[in-house]
Amino acid sequence: MNNQQLSVKMILDAWNAQLKNANKLFDTLTDDQFTEEVAPDRNTGTYLLGHLVAVHDGLLSLLGFGQKLFPELEEPFIKTPNKSGQTFPPVKELKEKWQTVNAALDQHFNKLTPEEWFQKHTAVSEEDFAKEPHRNRLNVVISRTNHLANHLGQLIFLKK
Amino acid sequence: MNNQQLSVKMILDAWNAQLKNANKLFDTLTDDQFTEEVAPDRNTGTYLLGHLVAVHDGLLSLLGFGQKLFPELEEPFIKTPNKSGQTFPPVKELKEKWQTVNAALDQHFNKLTPEEWFQKHTAVSEEDFAKEPHRNRLNVVISRTNHLANHLGQLIFLKK
Repeated sequence: MNNQQLSVKMILDAWNAQLKNANKLFDTLTDDQFTEEVAPDRNTGTYLLGHLVAVHDGLLSLLGFGQKLFPELEEPFIKTPNKSGQTFPPVKELKEKWQTVNAALDQHFNKLTPEEWFQKHTAVSEEDFAKEPHRNRLNVVISRTNHLANHLGQLIFLKK
Repeated sequence: MNNQQLSVKMILDAWNAQLKNANKLFDTLTDDQFTEEVAPDRNTGTYLLGHLVAVHDGLLSLLGFGQKLFPELEEPFIKTPNKSGQTFPPVKELKEKWQTVNAALDQHFNKLTPEEWFQKHTAVSEEDFAKEPHRNRLNVVISRTNHLANHLGQLIFLKK
């Protein structure tokens, strides 16, 4: 395995490790626990779960794999904060969508060659990418892994 | 820049981005705010700050740069949980040590060649490393970046 292949492996391993942590935590939480705030006056578990589904769904288009599966989640869970008087989908439904989105990503991830991981993502122009080659698919995964780790630090507080 | 160099850049950029987030947050918090719990019955800001200093200090030895600067922090902030009746150093002192440790790491990081980033860390044997070449210095930084992101998700709750 050369260092390019190793880099891809390490970055995907870190992504999968955070997903595993998330799934392990989500399995121990009841739907009622998700509806609670992670800390006083902070986001609820439901909101953070929906937020994570919507952000991961966005990777499908950002990485050039296709269209979002659940574009309707962008408005309530990315564009709008928790307390905007919105009605959220049931936790059960969000948990299913979480699995669906991550499984779709996993399928696409496994098909990419190391070289394809270093290709540009869809939000950067060819011109900018020529100057900033780090704006590639792999970099997006690094960033989203940290995003997931950040919110998992909060979601863990739902555990009694 | 080849893909090996790019990988090192992306992983270090992510590390530095999380450090920047941390420093920005720490600058806005008063010492009194650090002494509060991040959520009811959870760790205090002081404990999490000390924990982060101790874990980052551990990188100096784990990455083969030298000895820990503050080995005395391991016992209270890694081996022992928050509520063990311990007396913690003042926040001011921990904040200074946080800067000292990260500056020392930065100096060492900047001296490494891309090839050296893919060399083994000190907690893996030559024999195991031959079979598992992903257990290198770079992988440790990926892991500690997620560790920092995780706790930053919690420390942000100290903000009013």
